[in-house]
Amino acid sequence: MAVSSGNYDHIEVVGIGNAIVDVLAHAEASFLFENGLDKGTMTLVDAEVAEDLYARMGPAVEVSGGSAANTVAGFASLGGRGAFIGKVRDDQLGAIFRHDIRSLGITFDSLPAPHGPPTGRCLVLVTPDADRTLQTYLGAAAEIGPEDIDAALIGGADITYLEGYLWDRPRAKEAFVKAGEIAHAAGRRVALNLSDPVCVDRHRADFIALVQDHVDILFANEDEIVSLFQVHSFDAAMQSVRGHCQVVALTRSEKGAVVLTDGEVHVLDAEPVPEVVDTTGAGDAFAAGFLFGLTRNHPLALCGRIGAVAAAEVISHVGARPEVPLRDLLKVKVGR
Amino acid sequence: MAVSSGNYDHIEVVGIGNAIVDVLAHAEASFLFENGLDKGTMTLVDAEVAEDLYARMGPAVEVSGGSAANTVAGFASLGGRGAFIGKVRDDQLGAIFRHDIRSLGITFDSLPAPHGPPTGRCLVLVTPDADRTLQTYLGAAAEIGPEDIDAALIGGADITYLEGYLWDRPRAKEAFVKAGEIAHAAGRRVALNLSDPVCVDRHRADFIALVQDHVDILFANEDEIVSLFQVHSFDAAMQSVRGHCQVVALTRSEKGAVVLTDGEVHVLDAEPVPEVVDTTGAGDAFAAGFLFGLTRNHPLALCGRIGAVAAAEVISHVGARPEVPLRDLLKVKVGR
Repeated sequence: MAVSSGNYDHIEVVGIGNAIVDVLAHAEASFLFENGLDKGTMTLVDAEVAEDLYARMGPAVEVSGGSAANTVAGFASLGGRGAFIGKVRDDQLGAIFRHDIRSLGITFDSLPAPHGPPTGRCLVLVTPDADRTLQTYLGAAAEIGPEDIDAALIGGADITYLEGYLWDRPRAKEAFVKAGEIAHAAGRRVALNLSDPVCVDRHRADFIALVQDHVDILFANEDEIVSLFQVHSFDAAMQSVRGHCQVVALTRSEKGAVVLTDGEVHVLDAEPVPEVVDTTGAGDAFAAGFLFGLTRNHPLALCGRIGAVAAAEVISHVGARPEVPLRDLLKVKVGR
Repeated sequence: MAVSSGNYDHIEVVGIGNAIVDVLAHAEASFLFENGLDKGTMTLVDAEVAEDLYARMGPAVEVSGGSAANTVAGFASLGGRGAFIGKVRDDQLGAIFRHDIRSLGITFDSLPAPHGPPTGRCLVLVTPDADRTLQTYLGAAAEIGPEDIDAALIGGADITYLEGYLWDRPRAKEAFVKAGEIAHAAGRRVALNLSDPVCVDRHRADFIALVQDHVDILFANEDEIVSLFQVHSFDAAMQSVRGHCQVVALTRSEKGAVVLTDGEVHVLDAEPVPEVVDTTGAGDAFAAGFLFGLTRNHPLALCGRIGAVAAAEVISHVGARPEVPLRDLLKVKVGR
């Protein structure tokens, strides 16, 4: 059960997603090939497959992750007031996840599961081209259900942010839908990040209906939006998505981003980085910056620029969460 | 009990030390001050103090650590054949430690404890000057005892490498002494790293007797060697240590290192690095490179140079173990 104090100090963004600890290791492309892994995608795996791959991986680093959790972490690092809903177990990795998110000042009151599968983890293989290939064992994260949705928290937050990955499990999907309904009933906005082209492929019809009817702010990268509408070019995808929701932010890696509304199109440059080390979390960080701009009523182009600055920080090191406070970076790069 | 196959494929260096997972976070010097922490040192803390500090620390990254374990990891990364003896529990952090060390090709057969305290961890606070302040909760690591010393492994290894930190617990000390005796009885060499000036301070008389009578290769940094002999300058410490053991390698951070034997003194430059990010593990990495040279019968100056190259890699990123294979770096920097 979600326990609500009913007295949250005005939360601006509440993220709902898989509570995951990332296990990051460097790997050659040949390792991916030998292990039958599809480079650049996220695959859901069971405990046995995860253990087996882990045993073959090189030395790793553990960092709290999870797509929506990364976004809320970035949002807090920018100075925003965030909350997160997600499920861990009462084990060591769960304690690490809880510590890391709370230490950023983020409200995280989801109770850890006292039994069942262990805290989820994502095996992240970073290839020399800085691309990342993800094998996720959801573990306890998949146990999230509608009972974890805190109505007072969702109803009081400006934006409820959902990761597409949640759609993979029926009870998580119920939680997702319930949160969206509460948010809209309270006159709040709902944001969705499509998360992964393969995830989009699994749930295309659902996602199109969802985007059309229940999502106000949509985040996707080029592969995801092209996959959603089964078109062959980014331009065609842009045409397809227009008018489906209030704001659409499409990220294109080094080609920057495009932000669309009914009446506006903004084409934005990527923020230059000296060296791209690991693109894990780039999209999550962009969403963090964009949402930060939105909650401060900045013009859309500036929202996108903040997103680009946040993404640039995250891709310049190993790991999906900012290593330096993004609010300091924002002052230097954007002057706010 | 140590389980020995009695058939190790010629191990060159076996390290014995605390099996620890590092929990690294950035912190301002003011945080250290507010929490009464002594900058640049290692303090042993109990579970409660560790939990309390952890709750106040910022978001962290978990990486396998432990002083001697880092050295063996560096040695393996250079292409050496290493083994490690140390104690974890059968918990998630223990599984992380085991995976990381084994994935480097290191022999690690110490059985995890099925009960008792959890796997040890070291809270590492990295200040903006790249210095690190360590608070260690030894947990299961402190449960190591003479029964964990595998006589076949020690007797067959060229060098048995011990971390001074082990001296802090009576049964670990017994293990330490037993390993040294087995190594010498088999005509092998024993190396000791003094580990920490405060650790030296706790065990000064013991360490002097040990260095005099049982250690062939001594590693220490400037603070540690000055503390050992209670002198006021590095020069005085050099005079005091000469003749105490076969080889003495003294590291001096950016001032490089000095290698002493009865007949030789080598003054070596530090390897330049573009940016010093985190000095955690610098001494461990130097020892790894130095031992790698020794096991290949390189001249002492070259041993020191390999140590400097290994240390430079480790201080150029967060975390105490190499991020890239050191053998590749060695080819580029030293041409071997």
